[in-house]
Amino acid sequence: MSLASTRTEHDMLGEISVPAEAYYGAHTARALVNFPITRETLADRHHLVVALATVKQAAAAANAELGALDRTRAEAIAEACTEIRSGRLHDQFVVDLIQGGAGTSTNMNANEVIANRALELLGHERGDHRALHPLDHVNLGQSTNDVYPTAVKIALDGHLGELLAVLAELREALAAKATEFADVIKMGRTQLQDAVPMTSGQEFGAFAATLGEDEQRLAEARSLLHELNLGGTAIGTELNARPGYRERAIAHLRDLTGIPTLVSAPDLVEATQDVGVFVQLSGVLKRVAVKLSKICNDLRLLSSGPQAGLGEITLPARQAGSSIMPGKVNPVIPEAVNQVAFEVVGNDVTVTLAAEGGQLQLNAFEPIIVRALTSGLDHLTSAIGVLTRHCVRGITARRESPADAVATSVGLVTALSPALGHEAACAIALEAHRTGRPALELVREQQLLTEEQLGALTTPQALTRGPG
Amino acid sequence: MSLASTRTEHDMLGEISVPAEAYYGAHTARALVNFPITRETLADRHHLVVALATVKQAAAAANAELGALDRTRAEAIAEACTEIRSGRLHDQFVVDLIQGGAGTSTNMNANEVIANRALELLGHERGDHRALHPLDHVNLGQSTNDVYPTAVKIALDGHLGELLAVLAELREALAAKATEFADVIKMGRTQLQDAVPMTSGQEFGAFAATLGEDEQRLAEARSLLHELNLGGTAIGTELNARPGYRERAIAHLRDLTGIPTLVSAPDLVEATQDVGVFVQLSGVLKRVAVKLSKICNDLRLLSSGPQAGLGEITLPARQAGSSIMPGKVNPVIPEAVNQVAFEVVGNDVTVTLAAEGGQLQLNAFEPIIVRALTSGLDHLTSAIGVLTRHCVRGITARRESPADAVATSVGLVTALSPALGHEAACAIALEAHRTGRPALELVREQQLLTEEQLGALTTPQALTRGPG
Amino acid sequence: MSLASTRTEHDMLGEISVPAEAYYGAHTARALVNFPITRETLADRHHLVVALATVKQAAAAANAELGALDRTRAEAIAEACTEIRSGRLHDQFVVDLIQGGAGTSTNMNANEVIANRALELLGHERGDHRALHPLDHVNLGQSTNDVYPTAVKIALDGHLGELLAVLAELREALAAKATEFADVIKMGRTQLQDAVPMTSGQEFGAFAATLGEDEQRLAEARSLLHELNLGGTAIGTELNARPGYRERAIAHLRDLTGIPTLVSAPDLVEATQDVGVFVQLSGVLKRVAVKLSKICNDLRLLSSGPQAGLGEITLPARQAGSSIMPGKVNPVIPEAVNQVAFEVVGNDVTVTLAAEGGQLQLNAFEPIIVRALTSGLDHLTSAIGVLTRHCVRGITARRESPADAVATSVGLVTALSPALGHEAACAIALEAHRTGRPALELVREQQLLTEEQLGALTTPQALTRGPG
Amino acid sequence: MSLASTRTEHDMLGEISVPAEAYYGAHTARALVNFPITRETLADRHHLVVALATVKQAAAAANAELGALDRTRAEAIAEACTEIRSGRLHDQFVVDLIQGGAGTSTNMNANEVIANRALELLGHERGDHRALHPLDHVNLGQSTNDVYPTAVKIALDGHLGELLAVLAELREALAAKATEFADVIKMGRTQLQDAVPMTSGQEFGAFAATLGEDEQRLAEARSLLHELNLGGTAIGTELNARPGYRERAIAHLRDLTGIPTLVSAPDLVEATQDVGVFVQLSGVLKRVAVKLSKICNDLRLLSSGPQAGLGEITLPARQAGSSIMPGKVNPVIPEAVNQVAFEVVGNDVTVTLAAEGGQLQLNAFEPIIVRALTSGLDHLTSAIGVLTRHCVRGITARRESPADAVATSVGLVTALSPALGHEAACAIALEAHRTGRPALELVREQQLLTEEQLGALTTPQALTRGPG
Repeated sequence: MSLASTRTEHDMLGEISVPAEAYYGAHTARALVNFPITRETLADRHHLVVALATVKQAAAAANAELGALDRTRAEAIAEACTEIRSGRLHDQFVVDLIQGGAGTSTNMNANEVIANRALELLGHERGDHRALHPLDHVNLGQSTNDVYPTAVKIALDGHLGELLAVLAELREALAAKATEFADVIKMGRTQLQDAVPMTSGQEFGAFAATLGEDEQRLAEARSLLHELNLGGTAIGTELNARPGYRERAIAHLRDLTGIPTLVSAPDLVEATQDVGVFVQLSGVLKRVAVKLSKICNDLRLLSSGPQAGLGEITLPARQAGSSIMPGKVNPVIPEAVNQVAFEVVGNDVTVTLAAEGGQLQLNAFEPIIVRALTSGLDHLTSAIGVLTRHCVRGITARRESPADAVATSVGLVTALSPALGHEAACAIALEAHRTGRPALELVREQQLLTEEQLGALTTPQALTRGPG
Repeated sequence: MSLASTRTEHDMLGEISVPAEAYYGAHTARALVNFPITRETLADRHHLVVALATVKQAAAAANAELGALDRTRAEAIAEACTEIRSGRLHDQFVVDLIQGGAGTSTNMNANEVIANRALELLGHERGDHRALHPLDHVNLGQSTNDVYPTAVKIALDGHLGELLAVLAELREALAAKATEFADVIKMGRTQLQDAVPMTSGQEFGAFAATLGEDEQRLAEARSLLHELNLGGTAIGTELNARPGYRERAIAHLRDLTGIPTLVSAPDLVEATQDVGVFVQLSGVLKRVAVKLSKICNDLRLLSSGPQAGLGEITLPARQAGSSIMPGKVNPVIPEAVNQVAFEVVGNDVTVTLAAEGGQLQLNAFEPIIVRALTSGLDHLTSAIGVLTRHCVRGITARRESPADAVATSVGLVTALSPALGHEAACAIALEAHRTGRPALELVREQQLLTEEQLGALTTPQALTRGPG
Repeated sequence: MSLASTRTEHDMLGEISVPAEAYYGAHTARALVNFPITRETLADRHHLVVALATVKQAAAAANAELGALDRTRAEAIAEACTEIRSGRLHDQFVVDLIQGGAGTSTNMNANEVIANRALELLGHERGDHRALHPLDHVNLGQSTNDVYPTAVKIALDGHLGELLAVLAELREALAAKATEFADVIKMGRTQLQDAVPMTSGQEFGAFAATLGEDEQRLAEARSLLHELNLGGTAIGTELNARPGYRERAIAHLRDLTGIPTLVSAPDLVEATQDVGVFVQLSGVLKRVAVKLSKICNDLRLLSSGPQAGLGEITLPARQAGSSIMPGKVNPVIPEAVNQVAFEVVGNDVTVTLAAEGGQLQLNAFEPIIVRALTSGLDHLTSAIGVLTRHCVRGITARRESPADAVATSVGLVTALSPALGHEAACAIALEAHRTGRPALELVREQQLLTEEQLGALTTPQALTRGPG
Repeated sequence: MSLASTRTEHDMLGEISVPAEAYYGAHTARALVNFPITRETLADRHHLVVALATVKQAAAAANAELGALDRTRAEAIAEACTEIRSGRLHDQFVVDLIQGGAGTSTNMNANEVIANRALELLGHERGDHRALHPLDHVNLGQSTNDVYPTAVKIALDGHLGELLAVLAELREALAAKATEFADVIKMGRTQLQDAVPMTSGQEFGAFAATLGEDEQRLAEARSLLHELNLGGTAIGTELNARPGYRERAIAHLRDLTGIPTLVSAPDLVEATQDVGVFVQLSGVLKRVAVKLSKICNDLRLLSSGPQAGLGEITLPARQAGSSIMPGKVNPVIPEAVNQVAFEVVGNDVTVTLAAEGGQLQLNAFEPIIVRALTSGLDHLTSAIGVLTRHCVRGITARRESPADAVATSVGLVTALSPALGHEAACAIALEAHRTGRPALELVREQQLLTEEQLGALTTPQALTRGPG
């Protein structure tokens, strides 16, 4: 890089060169040297970059109202933030997602980009921080301790909105299959052994219902994100924030985000050091992952075959399944979802360790918490979308043989058990299994029940809907 | 064992001897052979044994009302269940907590003990199952698929009641310390580096506040346990349960447990196979564990010393700390709590794997989920009780030197930063650190601020309570 | 408890009553008050109690040789230790397995029981510690820092001996089935989809082979346990241990344990603080658990049915499978093993957190590491024994239909693919799948290959053994 | 995209457009649609892309020798593979790292890129697969089942080489500090409480020693990667591989990789389905992570301050520590390493779930295992490099006050305990602690030991090096 293509910025450790075209400054430049860990940067987390700009804008507005920040600078800062929120300058958010410093480098990356863009808007050179300073003006009345977790919570709220939208679509697709398969009789299984008959519709209906519950749990966890420590500044003591700043900053944040339920935490010292809300959210994400994985396991099992498997359903063929076995088709979409689920479960352990490692007035490990949660949210959202579009909507169910299997199954004996008594029913079941003869035939042969009784006990309605 | 000391019971696999004095029967006897895994049995889970008896009593009452069960047998069953609920016959619940069969052995252990005790009450011999049968009468209209998860949820509700009680005591003890230490000025720390001043009272107040939030999360998770699949019988189809049974059984359960919020799940097929509620609870327990562990880490760190440590607080001496170092005292109580926390985090992974492993209409692995959750709940409850009684209530705080440290700390410079500007404040801080001279002295020497300004910016109130 | 039934012991915190008949003393009594966490005590870990006595005996012998301990006391200590090693006095090891203090309470429990028993053997009263002192004599030249991890490693070696024995039995049982099923042709499956033919013998042979590898990994991890920090005393500086003590103590330990490979660690400071060996062992146990769980998953899947499942093998019926479904038999033994595997995976996370939490010169959390490892080892050993005895040895394989399925399977097309070319083979496979006609028939009809070619490509040997 | 910029490729599902300039083909194009999960692709895993090309080259060479592949095509394939191994065409490896299909899309991406590049080299158009086919020629005698795990193992070997190199540098840097600080006396601590004196050199020496052990464990795990299932083709039956192919292909692989210890697995069916080697490696990586995290925790603790902390060492200042607190410097480098360690621990759980989820003849979830392992390896390698360069090499130790603290510490009493007896030593320690007077002064005052005794017992050598 030629001399002409850099400029000099400085911080408490001295001077450092940054690319001339960069909007970031000295703190960010040092972070680039210090944290070459992953290839993922803040720019790969759109919601977080937007949330950082939003928090900065809210703070500037509050400071301006209180007279702590002059109108000219405040407006320039607001305009720079507005640009970032609209998607511009994201490529200037270059710090690695895994970073030491409890988010300070993230906050400073934002402060510097906003300051230098605001300087430009005011007709100054980038780096002319006497005119507008990343710390004295953009970060005024703020600490990484409060703005970073606040921005993270708002970003997670955005991620959750997307996840909830695709979950709802998946739930609806499963519910549609429940309707479509409402009359497909099949054998229900417990512990992989034939149990009692049910419909394929009930099976898919259960999938839909269970995801509906997850949507509720996610919504609850989301609401916990709305309690903020903005205004707590360093360690939650509100040091250097003006009276009234906290309330005004959060009010502006409500306006800018459109989230009306944002509130200030009752104990700012606690709110600054505690990452319980992230542990809670991670736990719920893990729950969603476990449910999805179980559903995908079932889809793969029910579609096993085509000859030597259960073959109750068929998943859409999405790609050739083998480089050696001609014609093989694999359940690749559920398999991908399973793997995302395993990732999310692992992420939950990462979050747990990071949370447990917090010390005294701050948790230094929030960046890895943020990376784990946002990766999981992004991957779950993508994977669920794929599952809905490329798998669930195209599932078909086999309609013939299962009903026959049900008709001859020892599982039917369960329905006769109240009339026969458990021990007599057992004897029939064992004999059916030993001889291979249908249980109903044995019951008739031994005249244990009348035809009328048998008829009433073995209608599909009686078998699959209960006494209802 | 002499012939006289055994009796013969039988099941579908044939005859088997059980001890003559045993109330359990053939199914339980086989489970003893099949599952010699841990040395922990159902009898080690008081809440679960009571809950099993309670569910059986509710089912019998509902069946009696519907005419499915005669009054004589119903009353004998009720009396046997009442005895168990009062603490009798617990030693008859002998099946290992880790068991195959998705809880069937647990259910059968209960059915057999209740049946044999009811037979005695009716003047029959144990084992005379023509008179009263473990399956045809005690288990009437039930499947392990519904009664087992129902009993588990009621048992967990009992465990949670105990945990919440000790958590509240701990929170109150911490809050009392917050009051006691309200005027102890100390240095707040972020990332283990001196940050800005605060009070020891704020530190303990944050501990109290954070546990208060956990109590709320636990209460939410507890309420999810109140949705039951009782009446769903096998795989949730209600097969063999009479019309009206489900509603009546749950109504009786409400009466017997005193939990008014028990309700039937809207989708019984889903409710039978889904263990999401246990995953959710486990996630919240993990959150509690993480919080407790963080608090204990802080207590150990703040009490480090006595000479070469932080020494801000002193924990009560509970035992000699070393077999070789005379006079050493260690933070043994927090250390024990840390370890329980690590166990609970591990248990959460166990629960996760078990939940993910569920297939089709049932999760066969609920027994390990139950063991993991109830162990964690028991150990957390015990550990928290110990922490409150033997540690927190006896903590004292050092009152002298920290305030001096604060007075001379570079941390104070933060308070001057808005007046000085960040860069000038940095210069003072670095000079103070380099020379070892107090920052305030340097500010005075360089006449950067007036005495009036300095006084206003560095009052304890200004430093530790924000702009208030 | 009457006055007569207690005696008074004392420690640095003062006097405390212990039951008159107890061999333990003051430190243990305080630990009972401090750690009422689980109901599991040292006495529930036979190998650990024996190992503690063995280490104490070795230390006494070394001290006696060096003249640090008089012969009379040394012999009394040796006799007490010998008694404990033979199984006596185990009930005196009463401290909870979860305990603060980094094992000090465990060490003191041993010191006190040995001292009081030795006092008796010398004709003194229990508690007469002027004559023989738990610390000055039994613990001479020792610290919990070195004797506790040493005893733990020797105990784990004992546990591993048991685990390896049952693993070898299971491997042999699986290998016997591999031989028994060597001629059972079946469809191999990848991703639950029909792949290419194989034999059931190959399937069980792979199970045996994979466990053989685990035995090797376990043996490697076991050998790492043989590096000891005995003689390092406090923090590994050898403070208060006489010159020559370390070498002599370990030599005696080799003799007493019969483990010839016990050696001293090269860096005692490192060896005292590091728990890497336990993390390593836990990781290998987790690997064993994962392998076993996968095998059990396969056994359950292959035995699914009896009608609506794969039904390739039948597991021995061990107990009635349902309280409502007559005649149902479940794979209860593999299910129990799965659950133990899930427990072991969770334990590994517990061990990880405990290991990560170590600070500076010691890891205070070894007790939970010990509990997690020894529970896992015990449960795995029990579960594997059950799996061998009650499940694997009785497995039978279905010999008819799978071969037919193979004959008509599209999987056969893979064998023809090199001759046909992949794209032509694909076309055949898809047509076979669409029309339901056997692929071979289509190849013949379209005269794509000669009968000779077909014959050579589709012999069972060609299909299941490769080109060999 | 204009029509001119695409070409049509086809597979068993029909035709599909790919960009005209793409080297990949139909299978890859479908995978792009199916797996838009993360933004990480195969191209982000240099070692894996190279390993895939290396395996393909070895297979082509073996097939050519056996006459299964003509020389012309074999040479073109070899040349294409050589180009890829030299770093070209990596951008054509576009499939997402999380993918269903057990690696088939990865294998096909390689087959297609190699085929199309070889076609070019032969003067054909890309997509002219009659001339050279991705399956019939590039994938000849291969299945994803064998080539994918083989390539993965070779890639992991490459990653491990890098990790071991940076670990050795870190160990050496720590050992250099051990030498530098060999004469710095400090207080050793157990359970965060003052224990007995030691040197700072011993502390850093232990760090170096513990990492040396990890290097050994990693080397052992690495050697397990050298057992390959190449030649096993589908499910390990060697179907469609020519006699002699397996041995020749592995021999070529030894030559091409320069790894002389590559061998064929003894049981190919087992080797194809088993992922135990990955579980083992993941467990060892977790161990490394735990050790590193503990070291970083210690570095952060020992450097806490500057005033209200332990302050025994100083880490190099790498960046401004706060956006609000002027002059604050944080231990940002160790914090970043801690977070990578937490990630690796979480990844281990992900690997565990994926491994446990394998079914029958294949584990469909190897792609997430590969992603988890290679991410962890990359991030550990980067983080360790940063730790060495930007932190450890610049650490300085405080040389004055700790020695004083040691001199007056109750910790010294331990050294006197053998001479005084434990109980008398305890009394001195407690009095010293109560009165704040130095313990040695009390011993002198009470004439418990002579000056000669005291001198001998309290030399630095006696205190920190043991009796030696």
